[in-house]
Amino acid sequence: MTHIAFLIYPGFTALDAVGPYEVLSRLPKTRVTFVASKPGPVRTDTGALLVHAEAGIAEVPAPDIFLVPGGLSASIAAAKDAELIDWVRGAHATTEWSVSVCTGALLLGAAGLLDGQPATTHWAARDRLTHYGATYVPERVVRSGRVITAAGVSAGIDMALGLAAELGGTPMAEAIQLLMEYDPQPPFEAGSLAAASSETVSHATRLLRTAALRDVGRRFLRKDPKARPATLER
Amino acid sequence: MTHIAFLIYPGFTALDAVGPYEVLSRLPKTRVTFVASKPGPVRTDTGALLVHAEAGIAEVPAPDIFLVPGGLSASIAAAKDAELIDWVRGAHATTEWSVSVCTGALLLGAAGLLDGQPATTHWAARDRLTHYGATYVPERVVRSGRVITAAGVSAGIDMALGLAAELGGTPMAEAIQLLMEYDPQPPFEAGSLAAASSETVSHATRLLRTAALRDVGRRFLRKDPKARPATLER
Repeated sequence: MTHIAFLIYPGFTALDAVGPYEVLSRLPKTRVTFVASKPGPVRTDTGALLVHAEAGIAEVPAPDIFLVPGGLSASIAAAKDAELIDWVRGAHATTEWSVSVCTGALLLGAAGLLDGQPATTHWAARDRLTHYGATYVPERVVRSGRVITAAGVSAGIDMALGLAAELGGTPMAEAIQLLMEYDPQPPFEAGSLAAASSETVSHATRLLRTAALRDVGRRFLRKDPKARPATLER
Repeated sequence: MTHIAFLIYPGFTALDAVGPYEVLSRLPKTRVTFVASKPGPVRTDTGALLVHAEAGIAEVPAPDIFLVPGGLSASIAAAKDAELIDWVRGAHATTEWSVSVCTGALLLGAAGLLDGQPATTHWAARDRLTHYGATYVPERVVRSGRVITAAGVSAGIDMALGLAAELGGTPMAEAIQLLMEYDPQPPFEAGSLAAASSETVSHATRLLRTAALRDVGRRFLRKDPKARPATLER
């Protein structure tokens, strides 16, 4: 039985975790557990969705595989959370695979897993990744030893299908792909920095900034409901 | 402010809802609420993930848009749940769009929304759809009047990007696609009945049957923890 832990934290991006979960949880002889600092509901980056962690990290110290999703400002905060980073470092000692999606790579970096390694992350966070000694590679999925990093959000689905083939064989991964009807037909050619127009890149960057500020504000306000963070006044 | 309700129920498939949520929740002037029979955690089809409903359906009788995800045996059960189906029928009276992903179409069918209409669903449920008077169309997204049906699971992402363009304009939808890095690169050509080999189709059908039996068993056992459903004995 392969035990896969999905590490979630306040402000994570839901699809970063749920895309790969939908693939990997369909593998036979596989158990999936969503873990967080402590068990209970965890609010995602938009504020509109809560996902439940069924276990605290202390209960799952040595999964066979773990996956860390990204978030907006939250992944930067999580990369500074000593308890989470200690868990990532400790779990990595015995994993078969240690995996990140999107800015989840920042947590792997903070735990020292990317030092001197090639890795990927969300395009908007590529400079941050190099702070941890990683070499940013503009690929959708990057493997280096036992570490797999995937680019932004939906890249986790492609990554997970590749990992499913590794774990359960290609025929199994293909069957899971058909079950999910993963026959993508995006209506626009705008999904990567290379494909998007410069207008789309500017627009996306503005959206990201607004969402990140809202996200910082929300996390700030949760600590002190009366506070009015300066970042939201601009 | 456009209010979008995601109707979830025990045994729904997480990605059916979370894919479109990740797109639509990024639209400005949009509010998203996950609703269920009553507020609280709702277990998904794999048993491994719980998503929180922040409101009961009675609290959100008239959203501007609603979306119904699919599930395994659970969507068949939900299509027989008079309370849920009454809500779907009532909400549809005033929606701008009424939307399903995957076997969520069965709930629209049960509410009478597909009678005489073209519609799509998960490939494995295409015969069931015709019970409701719908004409099954093997497309990834089908629109008919104010009703949008999407095919299985990941089809919801493509559908939501099209809907986002409708609601917020194409430049906005493109920016959201770039934020999600939705530049799909599936490792296999296996995501549709047309693309998959006959071996993959058989394999997927077996996986689906096993998962559905496990799902029925789980829902059965929850009602009576001592029961041993016959379907699991085979």
